[in-house]
Amino acid sequence: MIATKGYAAQTKESALAPWSFQRREVGPHDVQFDILYCGVCHSDLHQIKDEWGGSIFPMVPGHEIVGKVVAVGAHVTKFKVGDLAGTGCMVDSCRVCESCQQGLEQYCLVGNSQTYNGLEQDKKTPTYGGYSNTIVVNEDFVLHIPQNLDLAATAPLLCAGITTYSPLRHWKVGPGHKLAVVGLGGLGHMGVKFGVALGADVTVLSTSPRKEADAQKLGAHHFMVTTDPAQLEAASGQFDFILDTVSAEHDYMQYMTMLNVDGVHICVGAPPTPSAMHAFSLIIGRKSIAGSSIGGIAETQEMLDFCAEHDIVSDIEMIDIKDIQPAYDRMVKGDVRYRFVIDMATL
Amino acid sequence: MIATKGYAAQTKESALAPWSFQRREVGPHDVQFDILYCGVCHSDLHQIKDEWGGSIFPMVPGHEIVGKVVAVGAHVTKFKVGDLAGTGCMVDSCRVCESCQQGLEQYCLVGNSQTYNGLEQDKKTPTYGGYSNTIVVNEDFVLHIPQNLDLAATAPLLCAGITTYSPLRHWKVGPGHKLAVVGLGGLGHMGVKFGVALGADVTVLSTSPRKEADAQKLGAHHFMVTTDPAQLEAASGQFDFILDTVSAEHDYMQYMTMLNVDGVHICVGAPPTPSAMHAFSLIIGRKSIAGSSIGGIAETQEMLDFCAEHDIVSDIEMIDIKDIQPAYDRMVKGDVRYRFVIDMATL
Repeated sequence: MIATKGYAAQTKESALAPWSFQRREVGPHDVQFDILYCGVCHSDLHQIKDEWGGSIFPMVPGHEIVGKVVAVGAHVTKFKVGDLAGTGCMVDSCRVCESCQQGLEQYCLVGNSQTYNGLEQDKKTPTYGGYSNTIVVNEDFVLHIPQNLDLAATAPLLCAGITTYSPLRHWKVGPGHKLAVVGLGGLGHMGVKFGVALGADVTVLSTSPRKEADAQKLGAHHFMVTTDPAQLEAASGQFDFILDTVSAEHDYMQYMTMLNVDGVHICVGAPPTPSAMHAFSLIIGRKSIAGSSIGGIAETQEMLDFCAEHDIVSDIEMIDIKDIQPAYDRMVKGDVRYRFVIDMATL
Repeated sequence: MIATKGYAAQTKESALAPWSFQRREVGPHDVQFDILYCGVCHSDLHQIKDEWGGSIFPMVPGHEIVGKVVAVGAHVTKFKVGDLAGTGCMVDSCRVCESCQQGLEQYCLVGNSQTYNGLEQDKKTPTYGGYSNTIVVNEDFVLHIPQNLDLAATAPLLCAGITTYSPLRHWKVGPGHKLAVVGLGGLGHMGVKFGVALGADVTVLSTSPRKEADAQKLGAHHFMVTTDPAQLEAASGQFDFILDTVSAEHDYMQYMTMLNVDGVHICVGAPPTPSAMHAFSLIIGRKSIAGSSIGGIAETQEMLDFCAEHDIVSDIEMIDIKDIQPAYDRMVKGDVRYRFVIDMATL
């Protein structure tokens, strides 16, 4: 076994603290890479606090993981020692169900193995995430990280990036489309960058006028304050797609009026409580509310390659791992532009 | 002006009663047809009771109208005296907006002219529906009714038919797809017939085991009682599409679990109150809830031609117009197989 250092929550009440644990030996199809950077996702906090239920402790969070390969199994063909490597929200899936066969491992019908707070496909062995110094992952769930991008700033692409890229590609958002992005956080700021790069006309919808300069800096073409009735009125029927990244409770129906005929409101943020949904709002104009979860492995690689080509990374604030708690506190207040990334050398 | 006899509600409190009114003279682009049959839609009752608000009185309901052409304007090219003719939920639209240009007059951005309880495009002249002996409609909003179908049973195709046909076509439902139909009323029974004719594997979902024989008679391949936990469990992830025709209050979230990855829940019934909607239910499996309203004029003609080819009509119970109130009472209880049609000779 491989002795590993990390930060873990021992219970849902306890703060993250140093913890030593063991990872499996590098198997014939495994890649081991030392973790250089790990992004901090809001879901890390939800899960260590057991806010979604069913949390497995001790928990080592982190699913935006990048680093350098230090060992490969005998049958590994895609990676060699010294390569950059990354892992996102999944470390395995059943491989045989209809979803897996279609490259939609995120919707594995048997249940994929989440990178942390999950179980390996043996449905027994717990998984531990990226707030740690090294990780062993089957090569099919390891991504190639482009050389030309700032490495720390690529870490959030593995969750925040693919979560926004995948639905924009699935719904074929591009030139001629009007896209609104709701929420300018870790997900939202990537949604703006991808929307712009894909050629859509991008509007940021925000409750706060203070975000306008930020939105412009990210490349958004327009900005709208949704608490202003006049701007809301002007937005009626304007958008082909709304990418909703907000995970706080909010009213979806408000956004239905802003959709054009055949418009789609795509939820990638998951509020803890349901919203009211009136069928009339969908029927008039053949509108849809849809959801989307991260992306498949092949699509995640495609996203990374797209980022390399378009020089896209996340805007990040680097932190020492000992400062994770203050970072969580700021994240909860939305006080981060736009993703914290842990410098794992500080472990 | 053309003296016309009909049945009208004078206020939202009053019962339908005979009323004489005038229709416009046949203009150069108009078709006048004498009404032989008119279907009874649940929305007739909602609107005469002003349950959706904004009702215009006196109101002559009826938007499932078929009959025989008795006069055509000088520039009419599509119809001649003696032709069968029909009109559904719309008698005009702006003709120039993006929706109208795409043949989606039902989503006219300026607002189309509903066949009754609406206004002509002058936004002043009230429209009166099919519970009457004759009607004058611009030829572009008049449909050709196939000769080979039972005429009375084609009337409901103009609303119940197109309302279910249009979404099945829009979402390209066909061979290899599993389609569930919720609600076995005027809309639902047409949804089953169209789903079967389009080659889908069709399941009727019902709260009542009594409906099983009916479902089979309509051609459904499977039947499921949604109040049975074991059947609900077995339905998990089963359907590519759910066509939800129920306009009574109900829980959409229950159906989300029955959708396969990328499944779409299509609402064509409009409950008066909103349902709770949890984004998580959509995110896991990239599911959608969508709405759909009737269909455009060209698509309505396509539907009628499809019915002619596949020998599809509505299952109806014919009534005298003087029996409209007892018919409404039975309709509210769901006690009709599956659509009342008024024999207008009884006016």
